Order: sequence, then C-alpha cells, then structure tokens
Amino acid sequence: MKEKADIGLIGLAVMGENLVLNMESKGYTVAVYNRTVEKVDTFVNGRGKGKNFIGARSLEEFVVSLKRPRKVMMLVKAGKPVDDFIEKLIPLLEPDDIIIDGGNSHFPDTVRRTKYAESKGLLYVGAGVSGGEEGALKGPSMMPGGSPEAWIHVKKIFQDIAAKVDDGTPCCDWVGEDGAGHFVKMVHNGIEYGDMQIINEAYHLMKELLGMDAFEQHEVFKKWSTGKLDSYLIEITRDILAYKDEDGNPLVEKILDTAGQKGTGKWAAVTALDLGIPLTLIGESVFSRCLSAQKDIRIKASKTIIGKKPAFKGDKQQFINDLEQAIYASKIISYAQGYDLMMEAAKEYNWNLNYGGIALMWRGGCIIRSVFLGDIEKAFRNNPKLENLLFDSFFKNAVETAQESWRRVCATALENGIPVPALTSALSYFDGFRNDRLPANLLQAQRDYFGAHQYERIDKPRGEFFHTDWTGRGGSTASSMYQV
Amino acid sequence: MKEKADIGLIGLAVMGENLVLNMESKGYTVAVYNRTVEKVDTFVNGRGKGKNFIGARSLEEFVVSLKRPRKVMMLVKAGKPVDDFIEKLIPLLEPDDIIIDGGNSHFPDTVRRTKYAESKGLLYVGAGVSGGEEGALKGPSMMPGGSPEAWIHVKKIFQDIAAKVDDGTPCCDWVGEDGAGHFVKMVHNGIEYGDMQIINEAYHLMKELLGMDAFEQHEVFKKWSTGKLDSYLIEITRDILAYKDEDGNPLVEKILDTAGQKGTGKWAAVTALDLGIPLTLIGESVFSRCLSAQKDIRIKASKTIIGKKPAFKGDKQQFINDLEQAIYASKIISYAQGYDLMMEAAKEYNWNLNYGGIALMWRGGCIIRSVFLGDIEKAFRNNPKLENLLFDSFFKNAVETAQESWRRVCATALENGIPVPALTSALSYFDGFRNDRLPANLLQAQRDYFGAHQYERIDKPRGEFFHTDWTGRGGSTASSMYQV
Repeated sequence: MKEKADIGLIGLAVMGENLVLNMESKGYTVAVYNRTVEKVDTFVNGRGKGKNFIGARSLEEFVVSLKRPRKVMMLVKAGKPVDDFIEKLIPLLEPDDIIIDGGNSHFPDTVRRTKYAESKGLLYVGAGVSGGEEGALKGPSMMPGGSPEAWIHVKKIFQDIAAKVDDGTPCCDWVGEDGAGHFVKMVHNGIEYGDMQIINEAYHLMKELLGMDAFEQHEVFKKWSTGKLDSYLIEITRDILAYKDEDGNPLVEKILDTAGQKGTGKWAAVTALDLGIPLTLIGESVFSRCLSAQKDIRIKASKTIIGKKPAFKGDKQQFINDLEQAIYASKIISYAQGYDLMMEAAKEYNWNLNYGGIALMWRGGCIIRSVFLGDIEKAFRNNPKLENLLFDSFFKNAVETAQESWRRVCATALENGIPVPALTSALSYFDGFRNDRLPANLLQAQRDYFGAHQYERIDKPRGEFFHTDWTGRGGSTASSMYQV
Repeated sequence: MKEKADIGLIGLAVMGENLVLNMESKGYTVAVYNRTVEKVDTFVNGRGKGKNFIGARSLEEFVVSLKRPRKVMMLVKAGKPVDDFIEKLIPLLEPDDIIIDGGNSHFPDTVRRTKYAESKGLLYVGAGVSGGEEGALKGPSMMPGGSPEAWIHVKKIFQDIAAKVDDGTPCCDWVGEDGAGHFVKMVHNGIEYGDMQIINEAYHLMKELLGMDAFEQHEVFKKWSTGKLDSYLIEITRDILAYKDEDGNPLVEKILDTAGQKGTGKWAAVTALDLGIPLTLIGESVFSRCLSAQKDIRIKASKTIIGKKPAFKGDKQQFINDLEQAIYASKIISYAQGYDLMMEAAKEYNWNLNYGGIALMWRGGCIIRSVFLGDIEKAFRNNPKLENLLFDSFFKNAVETAQESWRRVCATALENGIPVPALTSALSYFDGFRNDRLPANLLQAQRDYFGAHQYERIDKPRGEFFHTDWTGRGGSTASSMYQV
C-alpha cells in the first residue's frame, strides 16, 4: 500500500477528473473511486498516469486509503445518487470524518443531509463549485457550507485549489451553516442566467434593430470587455461572435435558438417566490429560456401574427453607448435582487452570511466573475450591514447616471418589437423600489372587496386592520380561511 | 332523527357557512360539522335557523346522518387539516362514499389524496371553489376533479349551487382526473393576480403620469366596464375608486400600499417554472406584491435615490384610450400563458382537459369573470385543438390592433419612471412568441463555451448535437454531469 491520500473523490466525470488533477497539481495525494470501476483504471492509467493518485476498486478500499479525519468528496449527479453514497459511506467512516458534496445539490437537501450526517457523528460539507470544466482544472470558485467544525480540515486544500483574485485571495471561504454553500451557489447560477439573458438582449437589439452582424458586434463586445462591463461572460461573447464556421461566416448564426437548462437556475426563482423576494430579472431569464425552447410554435406564430418590424431612427453609436449603460444598470439590479434573496434566506435559515466574502468568491474562477464583483465586495466592506446594493453610493450613482440611457433603450426596444424582458423588468423594479407609494393600495382594496381580506391605513399604525363593506351588501366578517 | 342529509359539510368558516346556505336554498338538506362544535350550534340556531340543516356534534353522528353514497365536503384550511379529516373519515365511511375537498389545496396533494382515497375503496373530489364569500352564497365558480366515477353523484348539486351564465349554463363542469380541478383553480388564482396587477398599473399610470384623482379614474373605469374590458375586477375597481372615506376623500388613497398574499397565486408561477412554461405576467404580478410589501425600504429608497419624475407630454384622452388597449392586449397574453400552462400540465399528468369548458366555469361566479372569457370559450369551441389563444383569429386581431397603443403606453411609462412590469413583460412575451429567431443561439454558444453543453444547428436535423472547442484549449468531451 502506498502512502495514504489527503482527500478522496467519488465520481470521475469531467468535473471530477479535472478537480482531482487540480488537487494533485497542488501537492495533494488523491484517492479516486467511481461506481463504474473501469473508469478508475482508465483515469489512473490515462490523464492521471504517473501522478499521486490512488485508484480504489471498492468503497472499502477507497475509505481505507484516506488519512484521518477522512475527507470524502462526492461529485456525482444531484439527488438520489448523493443519498445512496452517504448511506454506503456511513458504515465505513469513523467519527469526525467529513463527507463533502461538491455537486449541484439543492440546498434543502444539503440542510437535511448535514443534520443527518451529524446525527451519525460525521461532519458534512455542501460546497457549490463553479467554473465549468476549465475552472475545475485551473481553479474554480468554491462556496462551502455545512458543519462549521469541518472548515478547519478542508480550508487549506479548498483554498489551494480555488481560483485566486489578483492579490492572491482565494475565491473560496466559509459561507455558513448547513445548506448555505449550496444556497449561495444557487443564487450564483440564477445570476448567471440573468447576466446571460441581458447579453442576449443586447445582441438581439444590435442584430435586429441596428442591423449589425456578429463580426461588427464582436468589436462592440471587445470594447465593452475593457470597460465597466469587463467580465468573463462579456469576454466569451466577444470570442463567440468572432468565431468563424468552416464557410467563414459567424458560427453563432448557425446555432439553433432553443436554450437548454438543467434546472438549477430555476431553483433561484422558485426559492424567491417561496421567500417572497422579487427576483424579477432572473425569473424573466428562466422564462425566456422556456419561450426559446418553444421553437415550433414560434415559427408558426412568426408566419401568422402581424407584428411590429424594427425600424431604427437615431444615432447608432449613441444607441450602443446607451446599451452599455442599460446592461450595466440591469446587472446592478440583478445583483441587488440576488443579494436581497440571500439576506432573506439568512434570516429564514439562521445563516450568518458574509456578503462581501461571497462577492469575493464569485470574483474569480466562476462563470459570473467580473470586475463588478470587486465593487460589490467594496460596498459590503464599507458597510457590512448594507440593506440593499442600491444604497451603496457607487451603485446608486451608477444607476442614476445610467437611467436615461436605460430608459431610452427599453422604450426603443418595445416600440420596435424587440423582446427585452430582462432589461424592462429590471427597470420596473428600479422604479418600484425607489417608489414610496406603489399602487398596491388599490390591490388591497380589491382583496378586501371580494375576499374581506382587510387592509391597513396610511393614517393608522401598522398592524391595525380594517374591513370595508364596499357594496353595502356583504357581511362584516373578515375572511380568515378563504384564500385567493 | 330527521330525514337524512343530501350532503354534509365540515368547516363552518365564512365560506363554509355561505356554501351550505346556498345548498339549502336550492332544496338540499345539509349536515354540518365543525371541529369546534360550538360553531355548529351557533350556526344552526343563527343563520341556519328554521332551515334544513342537520347539526352534528361528532363526526360519527355527522356521517350517520348522510344518504348513501355519502358526500362529505370539507372546507377546512389547506394542508394537514385536510389529511387529518381524511384519516378520521376513512373508518367511518363505506365503499363508494365520496370525500370532497372544496378548499384551496395544492394540486399535488389532491393527486396524492385521490389515489389514497381510492385505495381505501372511496371516491375523491378536489374542487376548486372561487367567488369569495358572496360567490359561495349566491353561486360560485366550481372546478371539480378527482375520481371520475364521483361526478355523476355530485354533478346535480354542484351545478345547482354554481353560478350561471346568461343562458343558464352552470359555471361548473367536470375538469379531469385527480388534481385537475385544483390545478385549474390554481391557474385561475394566478390569472386573478395578473388581472389585478394590470389594473394596478393602469391606476398607477393615470394617477402619477396623468395626475388623475380616484374620482376621475372612477369615470374611466365606468366607461371601461361597459366595453371589452367588462369584468368583475374592472367593476369593483370602478366602485372602489368612487368610495368615499368619512372625510369625503377617496378611501383607496388612505389604504396602505403593501399587498398581502396567501400563497396560492405563487403556486402557479412555481408550477410554470417546474413545467418550463413562460408564465411571465403572473410571475411579475407575484413579484410586484413582494416588492410592495417591502414598504420600509422603499420609503428609504425614495428619499435616497434620484429617479425620474413623470412629466406627461401628450394627449391625455389618447393615452387613456391607449391604456384600454394595453390592458386588453396584456390580458390576452396572460390568458394565453395560463392556457399554455394548462396544456403542458395536461400532457404531464395525463389529464383530458376541456379548455372551452374551463373558460365557461370562469365565465361567472368567480373573481376573474368577464365577457372576455366568453370569447375564449368561443375560440376553443371553434377549434378544440387550438395550440395557443394567439392563433385564434379574434384574439390575434385584437392584439394586432392593440399593439401600437400598447407599445406607446409601455414606452411612455418606462421613460417617465412608472413601473409597469406586467404590461412590459406581456409585450416582450408577445414579441418573443411571434419571433422565429430569438437570441438563444448566442446563449447556447455561451453554454457550450463554458460548460461543453453542446448545441444544435439550424442547418442540421433536430437532435444532432455539436460541441465547439471555442478557445482551442478545452477538451473535446461534452459535459454530461456539470449543471449550470
């Protein structure tokens, strides 16, 4: 038997392979196991050849090969496979050993599993890992949460393999108790959906309204990638737009416009609905993917319905400048909404979240990495109790400055028949957020009218409820059971 | 012992009381039971005095008082109370007796309970009931689903107590298997949220942009209530706007602008996300209620953030006319989205839904009742296989006619800083729906770039997937496990 391994990994798909290669490159000996055992041999004799890997042919062999307290990381399909491996591991592990789930588990599962593992004397870590296959290999963003006692044991290895920002700070820190890590990863994924949707809308406007081809747009994204929009997604969009198909034309235009999704983005929207937080931009982004997937019916509709045809009258360069502002402002709103969701979750689940630290974890390694996240980190460093990003002077000024451009872009798009659900949803949120008097007074009157749901009054203290017999016909009983 | 009862009801809250009074007025003898037994006496000696009610002081007495097959309707709080009563009823009931849940249960619960009751030899009905307290008394809209064999036994009584449209057709028909009735009620509630939000946005625009007070707006709604917007919600809005507080000023302006919700509306949005159907207008409506509830932070933001102040330049009456069109078009989109959700659910859950019949059930008795629903019923009568409301010539023409006005209203609102998330979300959906080429090709390129998620091509058959090594650095392996 060789020396014992520092950590073990179950699940040798692309992400798992890349992650263990990353660990090994940082000086760690890594035990690897896979349900289909042939995969272990293929890896150890392939990409892992000549490196410090211990290939295990059974879970028993795998567990025995680990230094104590054992660190067993799973990178398997979310759901039942995770529970199955936990069940198989429990009889093999000893007190204070640590089970780590590095997959895309839904946070309530991680809450449940943390409690369960702890009840068996083990420690549990649910770690969001972002960065795709390249990130896993070269340094992902890592968002670990779970049993707080586990952090001291995994901190070094996690921070060693994580991405680093320019000053060397790792994009990995302890997020919080039980499901907090996977929660923050879920918000990350939702924000990723939003960032992508915003870029898609800008591309659509430049293409359909301004009549620009992909190569012309490449120049715009090239410029944007050196400015305040500087981010990984802007960079890859720049590269994608320049990529030529075999015939010399832009490849992107050959790609079918039906978006896929694997469900983790929608979790953010569902969770926001459950917690009562307006996560509108991400919600619209998820729905936009759904609509794009209805390709056949869209083709039929395009032949049937007589809609507006774009006819741009104006200064093209001015519009492109406006667009940069509109993207930036919408992005600020999206992050403000995402942070609002995390703040509400922290209250709901008793997590002590480090909001600046979260921005730092996203600052590098992951899909949404950007210069912008440095500004968010700064905002929370200046005021750790910041209630909303829009109260930070930097972001407040940015949105105030952008708003005229943003309004022009949205209005022009709607007048010209280009769908911009994310840009307009963000703008309506902004106009609602800064409004001390929304029309919900009428809504409360309506609810009281048909359902006797009662209302509060602006000239009375909060918590005092009134019911009006609007018709003179209804009863005086307020409804406590009927729900609308 | 008096004669046996035709039906029994458990749960004497406002809705329950009104519903049994409705039944009794149609010639039925009704047994009533309530967990807090004093409530039974109060009712039988109060509102029920001298009428054909059998007050039961125990569940045993209640069950014995019913004609066979027994029809036991529960109007209790959704969730555990329903399961608890089912458990208590099972040992007391005999084969083919029928348990009816008339509360606001979530449809997956009704799916589960139908199977469970049937496994015990009973029949089960989950019936959505809408119309508030007044509707329950005078004729609600009823949407029953569950064990198909139950329908013949409850049909007469349900249709007798339900609302009727002008030609006498009852607003109650069999919806479909297991949870179909509660599903359709859920969609009804979501649509109700949407209709209310649209009206709220119109009110907000007239108030803040056009500077109209509630009494002036009353005149507008009065006119609208006789036109194509003719509906219960427009009518009650008309009445609310005219209602004077003790000081002679409009009461609506004294009401606090924080909307409540009891959760059934958000179920529609969550279900849409789960089924992958773009239910954007309802989603924005739920989120708008959430934002309205953040009153304290909005007050703070209104003092801090320098936003756009409305400055209307234009013809006021023209704008009001445009607004009517914008409301109408948005409403059409909302119903098109709701029907899309029902069609997807029918596929998913193997329900055979009668879409015209559903419109007819909503045509009277319930909160969303309107002339408009008659047009929807007609659309499905003309073509029962209609894929989308927007393909029906009536609605297609209506939206095409409305679109210029709709675009003007949305653009003007965004330029003037008035939040109109529902109106703009609907417009973007319309512009996306009628577009055979959405920007999701770029999105698929992005997903393939960072996650090797693969894409399809417009010049290749569907189902053939491609991966590009966009950077020249990545591997050739497509990701099957990493989820973004």
